[in-house]
Amino acid sequence: MPYRAPIEDYRFLFEHVIGLQELAATDRFAEATPDMTTAILTEAGRMCEEVLAPLQRAGDLHPARLENGVVRTSPGFDDGYRAIATGGWIAISADPAHGGMGLPMMLTTAVNEMMAAACLSLQLAPLMTQGQIEALEHHASDELKALYLPKLVSGEWSGTMNLTESQAGSDVGALRTRAEPNDDGTYAITGQKIYISWGDNDFTENVCHLVLARLPDGVPGTKGISLFLVPRFIPDEGGAPGTQNSLSVVSLEHKMGLHGSPTCVMQYDGATGWLVGEPHNGMRAMFTMMNNARLGVGGQGVGAAEGAFQHALAYAQERRQGRTPVGDGSGTIIEHANVRRMLAQMRAETFAARAIALACAKATDMETATGADHWRARAALLTPIAKVFGTETGISVANTGVQLHGGMGYIEETGAAQYLRDVRVTAIYEGTNGIQAMDLVGRKLADGGEAAFALIDEIEAQAEAARAALPDLAGPVWQATESLREATDWMLAQSDMTERFAGAMPYLRGFARVLGGHYHLAAAQAEGGDGARTRLARFYITRLLPEHAGHFAHATAGAGDLYALTPSDFAA
Amino acid sequence: MPYRAPIEDYRFLFEHVIGLQELAATDRFAEATPDMTTAILTEAGRMCEEVLAPLQRAGDLHPARLENGVVRTSPGFDDGYRAIATGGWIAISADPAHGGMGLPMMLTTAVNEMMAAACLSLQLAPLMTQGQIEALEHHASDELKALYLPKLVSGEWSGTMNLTESQAGSDVGALRTRAEPNDDGTYAITGQKIYISWGDNDFTENVCHLVLARLPDGVPGTKGISLFLVPRFIPDEGGAPGTQNSLSVVSLEHKMGLHGSPTCVMQYDGATGWLVGEPHNGMRAMFTMMNNARLGVGGQGVGAAEGAFQHALAYAQERRQGRTPVGDGSGTIIEHANVRRMLAQMRAETFAARAIALACAKATDMETATGADHWRARAALLTPIAKVFGTETGISVANTGVQLHGGMGYIEETGAAQYLRDVRVTAIYEGTNGIQAMDLVGRKLADGGEAAFALIDEIEAQAEAARAALPDLAGPVWQATESLREATDWMLAQSDMTERFAGAMPYLRGFARVLGGHYHLAAAQAEGGDGARTRLARFYITRLLPEHAGHFAHATAGAGDLYALTPSDFAA
Repeated sequence: MPYRAPIEDYRFLFEHVIGLQELAATDRFAEATPDMTTAILTEAGRMCEEVLAPLQRAGDLHPARLENGVVRTSPGFDDGYRAIATGGWIAISADPAHGGMGLPMMLTTAVNEMMAAACLSLQLAPLMTQGQIEALEHHASDELKALYLPKLVSGEWSGTMNLTESQAGSDVGALRTRAEPNDDGTYAITGQKIYISWGDNDFTENVCHLVLARLPDGVPGTKGISLFLVPRFIPDEGGAPGTQNSLSVVSLEHKMGLHGSPTCVMQYDGATGWLVGEPHNGMRAMFTMMNNARLGVGGQGVGAAEGAFQHALAYAQERRQGRTPVGDGSGTIIEHANVRRMLAQMRAETFAARAIALACAKATDMETATGADHWRARAALLTPIAKVFGTETGISVANTGVQLHGGMGYIEETGAAQYLRDVRVTAIYEGTNGIQAMDLVGRKLADGGEAAFALIDEIEAQAEAARAALPDLAGPVWQATESLREATDWMLAQSDMTERFAGAMPYLRGFARVLGGHYHLAAAQAEGGDGARTRLARFYITRLLPEHAGHFAHATAGAGDLYALTPSDFAA
Repeated sequence: MPYRAPIEDYRFLFEHVIGLQELAATDRFAEATPDMTTAILTEAGRMCEEVLAPLQRAGDLHPARLENGVVRTSPGFDDGYRAIATGGWIAISADPAHGGMGLPMMLTTAVNEMMAAACLSLQLAPLMTQGQIEALEHHASDELKALYLPKLVSGEWSGTMNLTESQAGSDVGALRTRAEPNDDGTYAITGQKIYISWGDNDFTENVCHLVLARLPDGVPGTKGISLFLVPRFIPDEGGAPGTQNSLSVVSLEHKMGLHGSPTCVMQYDGATGWLVGEPHNGMRAMFTMMNNARLGVGGQGVGAAEGAFQHALAYAQERRQGRTPVGDGSGTIIEHANVRRMLAQMRAETFAARAIALACAKATDMETATGADHWRARAALLTPIAKVFGTETGISVANTGVQLHGGMGYIEETGAAQYLRDVRVTAIYEGTNGIQAMDLVGRKLADGGEAAFALIDEIEAQAEAARAALPDLAGPVWQATESLREATDWMLAQSDMTERFAGAMPYLRGFARVLGGHYHLAAAQAEGGDGARTRLARFYITRLLPEHAGHFAHATAGAGDLYALTPSDFAA
């Protein structure tokens, strides 16, 4: 489908809202100047427009399939993957020592989002590899790094994550896959893993699986889990793919969407694996990988939202229907108030979600560059919000896109429905959105709210600074932030985690609403209070920001009324 | 999929919330006693559970297909249809003079909802026939009635609606299908219609199309449109299906869901048709049909919500995952706060949507029984709300159902995704939800708000009556109703319809939120303020009702900010 990379939006956000200059002021990211980032985004954007976007429908119409134990990918996906790999887009943030470019995650986030908008199912392959690179960089031995990282960074090999088993989903600690030490320092991995995205393909010469398993002396639960690298082909002495490992793809899932991405059931029958990190400490390594992957999945949602928005906008500017209130009355449907409202909401939500994702990426970068604890805490706080709000925005914008098309939206040939079916999984994988919300009100408030209040203070200070010039926008943002502060106080006052969990999801949604107001206000401010971004900010702050109150009322209702509703009540 | 008909919910709503007794007090519906209605619902419910529910997956896996111009339906659909027809469930509200049972629309609404929950794609067939029966009863000549109605009521023949053309969707007046008078009083119909649900099948001996077309002297726009009955087989002198008419199914659409329901492109090549109603007055007849169909489609949403809810509840009571905060900590996921919150929201929303649909049906019945204008106005006011809130609830509940299943929700075999894909179209067909919202703030407030304020007054009076016993529930409902009154005042103050349309959808959503609070409060009141329904009411009123404020803020923002956002702003 046609797709135009929103370079100008990234450029504006980088330079005027999120603060690229702060990043470029560090030694680590001194190269990340506006000129350089814009040049990179432009090049990546062109590849997305010209190579990836044309593959989107093919992935849906011709799903990946399993033939004699080998995955055959959708038509054109091999060329698409090669374009991603040869362009260097798999690992622009990876360590230059292994062939990466050492660029900020802000840039990776933007590039990932564009690839996701153009062809979500294919983009998931490099996203998985990125997570593996991150985990190996932080936790693998030097030998493993030297052998695997250059191949993963170049895209010659690809990576997957193997966490889930049928009885162990959100409860990873319940896994049963075993790892037995071999005599030579390797391990024999045995077990079955499900929902393995891109568990195999026909365009990389090796597929490397990061597998969670339990050593013989591993205790039950998450504390007895170790992480292993299990390649499909065991590298020979020269580092080339050698013997086939004792692993196989048992079957592919038949999914609601994302048909171009093979979702595998993987069987390990004493497969040879290498330990990554310390024994029994696999969850720590996995979290490294998951945090970035969560931001990456949030970005998938933003990308799908952008794609669905552009698709709907094109239709609204072409379709004529009914008398319209402006012009000569015979205009296109974009002139109808309800259609324009839908488009404005799609655009305003996408901008907010994009800003949150980039702010999260910037915090990660600042942590990398400065090692400062407060940046680490900021990144940790924003990760679940970026994941949930990004993916929920992807779903709601794609859903509105279907609606805007009327009857055509329900017909598959149009492509609007595919955005919705494809993006739907992003709210589920990489930790369901419910798990993210529990993470936010649990682990991410475990600092007594320090990180949250630091952000809240910043938002209020910005609103204060904007008040004189933009009182009608700054006032509501400040007010909403106070409500966020109160809701956060309420959460912190609950020592019983169940009380927090009962309102975790609406709390996160309200938090995201306030952040959206903050970034829209910053955009209006940067524009001097006059222009397209100010008009969009006014739409968001006047019409969408007020939803925060409903979310916070829901968030702070407590667990009492929920557990008063017994399972038998539901069967009434 | 397993389905249990929620008879007790209907019984409670009929007798304690919506007021079946008021209906039974009329001469027209004196038969509609609690015993009789419960007996009928129980019988219909059993058919849905035993015959229809097992067909749901088959319709998805084996879509209807076109073979040599004939539609072949999904496996088992013929038997399912026969069970519906022989049970008399196609037309329980139809005139007994033509074989109907003359029962209230309240009952039809409940039966339709159960059939929709069990197998949405098949249920759409009798729903279309019901609309045709209604239109013919009110507008056809006695000869047409005598010939067609008994066959439609018995289900031997089926009915369709033909409005849409590719250039004429929401703008029906743009249609181009022509009707030329023949010498014998019939008309020759020529044109192409799209999105014709159940345009053909292989289980009824005739398919009767109601087709909108323009006579040679018809003016452009909706005022030049006439309605024609165009059977696939022209009845012979004995009334049996005779010669094939000059019409054909050109193709079937490939849709996101509802695969069991064939969506046809119909071609009419001088097909023989009979005029229904007056020339050039086809829209009036079509509106008769559409109003009931809109309520029916709202009921489809409620049914899908119920089905998705039951499906998710079963999973939540069976799936074990993680440590749970109650019991011995190894319980099923229904014990997790966020899962229970999702289930409570699904249940509370479904109840609210069901109550609104039944209230709308009751108003229709009271209009039929008494002829009173205020009942007619009440039914007209509630129809767009029942359509939009029912279908949006179907979508949001099915979406939550997917989420609750985690990874399993995205796998088609589970069935959760099908509910979402199937119900998605209900927000689009029978007048998109956007069109419904414009109808609400336009035509339905054209009485100066009389019907709306009458309902608002009733809700406030009920809240006042409940205040002493249930202050924590009655207070917020009264307050929210005042906000609805203010938003309604705002709408009425806008003489420029574009101002209203800019907030039409959030106004409707806020209205529905308030109505939901009203019916939940009534349920709690009827229960004496103690029990499962009171607990559910508390959940709704505490956690969901507060959303009304966000909706009304959005609703009353006006058109200025929307039209300030120019199309070029969106391309930024």
